[in-house]
Amino acid sequence: MHQVYNYFGYIEKKLYCEEVSILNLASKVGTPFFVYSKKAILDKINQYKEAFKDYDTLICYALKANSNLSLLKIFEENGLGADIVSGGELYKAKKAGFSSNKIVYAGVGKTDFEISYAISENILSFNVESFMELDVINEIASKQEKKANVSIRVNPNVDPKTHPYISTGLKKSKFGIDIDQALDAYKKAVKLENLNVVGVHCHIGSQIMDVSVFREAAEKVVDLVFKLKKEGIELKFIDMGGGLGVKYHPDDNPPTPKDLADAIIPVVKQTGLKLIIEPGRSLIAEAGALITKVIFLKDKQEKHFVIVDSGMNDLVRPAMYNAYHHVLNVQEKDEEMIADIVGPICETGDFLALDRKIGKVERGDLLAIMTAGAYGSSMSSNYNVRPIALEVLVDGPNFKVIKEREDYKHISKYEEEVL
Amino acid sequence: MHQVYNYFGYIEKKLYCEEVSILNLASKVGTPFFVYSKKAILDKINQYKEAFKDYDTLICYALKANSNLSLLKIFEENGLGADIVSGGELYKAKKAGFSSNKIVYAGVGKTDFEISYAISENILSFNVESFMELDVINEIASKQEKKANVSIRVNPNVDPKTHPYISTGLKKSKFGIDIDQALDAYKKAVKLENLNVVGVHCHIGSQIMDVSVFREAAEKVVDLVFKLKKEGIELKFIDMGGGLGVKYHPDDNPPTPKDLADAIIPVVKQTGLKLIIEPGRSLIAEAGALITKVIFLKDKQEKHFVIVDSGMNDLVRPAMYNAYHHVLNVQEKDEEMIADIVGPICETGDFLALDRKIGKVERGDLLAIMTAGAYGSSMSSNYNVRPIALEVLVDGPNFKVIKEREDYKHISKYEEEVL
Repeated sequence: MHQVYNYFGYIEKKLYCEEVSILNLASKVGTPFFVYSKKAILDKINQYKEAFKDYDTLICYALKANSNLSLLKIFEENGLGADIVSGGELYKAKKAGFSSNKIVYAGVGKTDFEISYAISENILSFNVESFMELDVINEIASKQEKKANVSIRVNPNVDPKTHPYISTGLKKSKFGIDIDQALDAYKKAVKLENLNVVGVHCHIGSQIMDVSVFREAAEKVVDLVFKLKKEGIELKFIDMGGGLGVKYHPDDNPPTPKDLADAIIPVVKQTGLKLIIEPGRSLIAEAGALITKVIFLKDKQEKHFVIVDSGMNDLVRPAMYNAYHHVLNVQEKDEEMIADIVGPICETGDFLALDRKIGKVERGDLLAIMTAGAYGSSMSSNYNVRPIALEVLVDGPNFKVIKEREDYKHISKYEEEVL
Repeated sequence: MHQVYNYFGYIEKKLYCEEVSILNLASKVGTPFFVYSKKAILDKINQYKEAFKDYDTLICYALKANSNLSLLKIFEENGLGADIVSGGELYKAKKAGFSSNKIVYAGVGKTDFEISYAISENILSFNVESFMELDVINEIASKQEKKANVSIRVNPNVDPKTHPYISTGLKKSKFGIDIDQALDAYKKAVKLENLNVVGVHCHIGSQIMDVSVFREAAEKVVDLVFKLKKEGIELKFIDMGGGLGVKYHPDDNPPTPKDLADAIIPVVKQTGLKLIIEPGRSLIAEAGALITKVIFLKDKQEKHFVIVDSGMNDLVRPAMYNAYHHVLNVQEKDEEMIADIVGPICETGDFLALDRKIGKVERGDLLAIMTAGAYGSSMSSNYNVRPIALEVLVDGPNFKVIKEREDYKHISKYEEEVL
């Protein structure tokens, strides 16, 4: 196999995911669909475990990247915990079998219902994002006659040098408590009767390509841990969040889990505290591709268009963040073309790639939109009343449908019932 | 009632939709939810009918703006047709009772399945977007031993002066066939045995605030109609699409249906052909608001944040198009504040309004995000495993839930079944 991306490559000019031909897959399940390589996922899990094996670390998979239940099961079975941001993600984490003492819950807008749900499940820690949230969790815990475990999400004001929408650690961001207010927050938290103050959390952004910013953030967090110690506030763990970048463009050279470990462990080690990390994208993005069929070709005087059966409702990243996703022909071609690869949705923003060089396609050919494992299906919508795409997991020569294709009835169920 | 937006206004400092207090509604159905005023919808329908009453016109509601079945029923019962862009929208149009001879179907990426479905339903017209699509529709119609009605969507190269993502009539756009290639397309179409060539279609964009661009487009289309006539190709109708702007900002002064009629009828009249128009946003946007609850307040040194229980998964327009939505306090306040109104989703892009002046709110207060009737629920997603919001229709003093709140089980149904 001439490997192009992790476990995706060509055999006799046909694209394979592991040992499964994408063409064969498509003929069985139809298009569009997401395909994931189990080996690619296990590889990344093992890279993380190996990189952090010499330090007491809990690796919590961030469900927001992709919360397909069958994928969650892989992470759970391999010993990972779960990083959740909503009651819905808690529901899915429990369905997938994660034990509550490996679940951490961040998010600026936890509702009373969600907080109550998470307390009743006895999760490892709430990552608390505001002073007010401390009071609310305390109050709800008191009603349940429980103590809720809390960490405070601090905002170290480190610039992750990534897309503004996914930079989350700056002062002007809605996330966390500014690190210079953190001491006050902890002093408040320890006084609240129904809270156990267990840790400190930070998460500075996503798709980060330079691990030095993680070290910078870790140094600020460790300073805080020592300050808290002086005040008699002892923590159990430091949660450094997620955010490691992945390879979208073939020329991208993202840092490895080992690079991350080397950047933060020496800093965190000074405290002796347990470490939590929350990788999401870097565990799943490169393991997945979106497979779509060419419906029409269209030559306009100023442009060539390849119109495919998948669009921004399946993968919103190009429209939302102007993100680059590499496009591979499922059947390798000898001739090339430059075209906009666009979806069927009635918006000019509905594109997957602009002015892109690909092998010259015909109607009916398949394209693979690479590195679509993260923030693909999890952000998908029914815009234009389009069904959510099917998902497939490949394992060696085998494959399994891990999400059925949605039908029209399911889309409009909650409207039909009240019509 | 001190009316602020169409049928939304204050009575004794409390926001009402028609005669229903939003506070009472929220206590009954929870938050977040979309609320629509039936009177506002009927008003817009009547404005359109009145404006076009002296010319033979079919007003087709564009489902992509909002395809809630109960809302579709209102349009259907008032004699409107349907403008659809997918098989899913056809399914919903039929469920809502639209007769097939009032359904037109546009979209650059119709799949074989969708084309076949629409032919079997005998729709009024396919708005065909490429040469290749003509052949494919012809072939599929032939298999069904039918003739499919087609119009050709022409691209008049008129700049609608709106957001680039919703400008659809420029040469470099994926939509339509450039008007100077249109004659060739018609010549090809009339030769295809299983096609009935019935009309011409154009749609230049969305949220258009200056009707002169509609006149400009109509002139180009009418020129084409006369050219076609010379070639012996006689059409039945001219479909001028949709795109009339609405009031997002209180200072916006969008054109009325009457302005649109005055701009295009005198031009179209020269041909004597029936007119089709496809309003979507302008029929439903101002009739709807998204109601959300303040979960937390957060003061950071450089910013105030109002964190609400609704986010980009419910209303993606601010994140996607940097769109302005006016925000009203559901309880009118004496003091004011300036804040970012942000959602619970773990992205900095998850905001509803930035640096916005609103009445000073407390935890538990409600806010109304106005003009959310179009491209709100229709673009919503389960991102962060958040359930799709409930929807309510108000009619005078009464209200009816027209979409139940989604539960976690429904979200993950297609994953649980195969776990």
